[in-house]
Amino acid sequence: MELRPDGIIRLDESVPAVVLLDQRRLPDAIVELECRTVPELAEAIRTLAVRGAPAIGVAAAYGLALAALRGDDRAEAEAVLAASRPTAVNLFWALAELRDDPTPERARALHDEEVERCRRMSAHAAELFEPATRALTHCNAGGLATGGYGSAVGALRAAWERDRLQHVLVDETRPLLQGARLTAWELEQIGIPHHVIADSAAASMMARGEVDLVVTGADRIAANGDAANKIGTYSLAVLARHHAIPFYVVAPTSTLDASTATGDAIVIEERDGAELTTRFPARNPAFDVTPRELITAIVTEDGIL
Amino acid sequence: MELRPDGIIRLDESVPAVVLLDQRRLPDAIVELECRTVPELAEAIRTLAVRGAPAIGVAAAYGLALAALRGDDRAEAEAVLAASRPTAVNLFWALAELRDDPTPERARALHDEEVERCRRMSAHAAELFEPATRALTHCNAGGLATGGYGSAVGALRAAWERDRLQHVLVDETRPLLQGARLTAWELEQIGIPHHVIADSAAASMMARGEVDLVVTGADRIAANGDAANKIGTYSLAVLARHHAIPFYVVAPTSTLDASTATGDAIVIEERDGAELTTRFPARNPAFDVTPRELITAIVTEDGIL
Repeated sequence: MELRPDGIIRLDESVPAVVLLDQRRLPDAIVELECRTVPELAEAIRTLAVRGAPAIGVAAAYGLALAALRGDDRAEAEAVLAASRPTAVNLFWALAELRDDPTPERARALHDEEVERCRRMSAHAAELFEPATRALTHCNAGGLATGGYGSAVGALRAAWERDRLQHVLVDETRPLLQGARLTAWELEQIGIPHHVIADSAAASMMARGEVDLVVTGADRIAANGDAANKIGTYSLAVLARHHAIPFYVVAPTSTLDASTATGDAIVIEERDGAELTTRFPARNPAFDVTPRELITAIVTEDGIL
Repeated sequence: MELRPDGIIRLDESVPAVVLLDQRRLPDAIVELECRTVPELAEAIRTLAVRGAPAIGVAAAYGLALAALRGDDRAEAEAVLAASRPTAVNLFWALAELRDDPTPERARALHDEEVERCRRMSAHAAELFEPATRALTHCNAGGLATGGYGSAVGALRAAWERDRLQHVLVDETRPLLQGARLTAWELEQIGIPHHVIADSAAASMMARGEVDLVVTGADRIAANGDAANKIGTYSLAVLARHHAIPFYVVAPTSTLDASTATGDAIVIEERDGAELTTRFPARNPAFDVTPRELITAIVTEDGIL
């Protein structure tokens, strides 16, 4: 089953509402969430009904279009959306893109452009795969995370279509299991052989020689190439370096943040410790920063950097 | 509350039965499990009602004493227990120790000796802690895992009593959450400040400068010093080396396996993938092997190696 872009996020002007495939319910249930107001949409972003940096950007673009259709105050709508999640830079990029033309047409064009960027970057990334590659990925950088096709999962898909991919190890990605719930589900749809592993088993799989490359997405890439992504990504980059395995980041140029010089300046969202345990004190940073020197290549729609 | 050795594992000769604090139910419920037969005890070991290499050894010793009290065939009882879990060498050590004298007295003496070893190795390990140390640990190498006092958690306890420990980060330890359920619970009992983190967040905490040392237990230590322990331990050792943080293994001499030359020869238990996900294919190795060169020191009751 192809995961259609408008099945992930769309604007329904007849309601009007931004309609999201509720990613919190996957893979157990395919349920759509109808957000009729900007605060409802911001809450859906905050609670991860829609997640993944490019998808958050697309959702925010539709959100500004929704606000315009409703006649809401534009500045207030933008502020509410901007406050929903701090780390994904695509959110701020999409809000800026829609600022002067918050129409359904412009939002749809932005969505189409993001999916097209994914197809192009994935084709570039597939060039990095040798025949029979066994890849490892973390979190979900799939169609769900980008509004269609995917970045890291897009690269896996493109490599699979070119007969260069043998198998994918999927980090389950605690605490919210985006790997075990979303990436495994997407790979199943595409038909790519895969196994879910505990995040902590990745090192052992590398030591056994079962990983040829690691590929992830990114939530924000600083001007120097440092990349913020789901917590655990930095860990994989260190482990990949130790085992002499290439570590690739695949992300659209909307993820690049020229205004942030290095990863040290990226705001890391700390989420509720209750996502880990309600019984004991917990710390729950949602992202980490991988320094540029641990990244073998960053792949965007413009090519391999 | 002190976790008493006989509150963790004991032989009740009046039944007769081996009585275990059911670690699967912690921390939500304090429930004892009464194993009246050796197959029941082997199933309790297999399903992790009792876990941790030294504690498995103690349970197996009581199991042979139970078999003798019941008049069971000794060789068959030993075979059933030996088949319960493959990685912990203490299991085989304890069975050999009880072979010629499978009495309640000998089993209790072995249990007492294991707890005494823990106290001694923990005192040695505490010497490795500078004042105000912020430690990170994985899985549960506590009193629950050793039949009393603990190995890695014993070291934390001894350091805390000597006023050298400031805080502990506890890896939740997927898939079965021995850190978030058992170690956090033990640290709470002792009164040591702690936070649970996702296993994949350890690298980020190291990069932030929040970890002064890593301390874990071991399930089997090969003759050359390679150590098998809960999946994720090897990952921590690689990450600690990258961040120039000491990595200590604390384990009783009953964990040393002179008959295994290197870690390559250690049998790694693969558990049911359903512990991770029942929806998608999964791989679930329960242990990994940390090569000696990544271990700063191994601490036993005989001192710091």
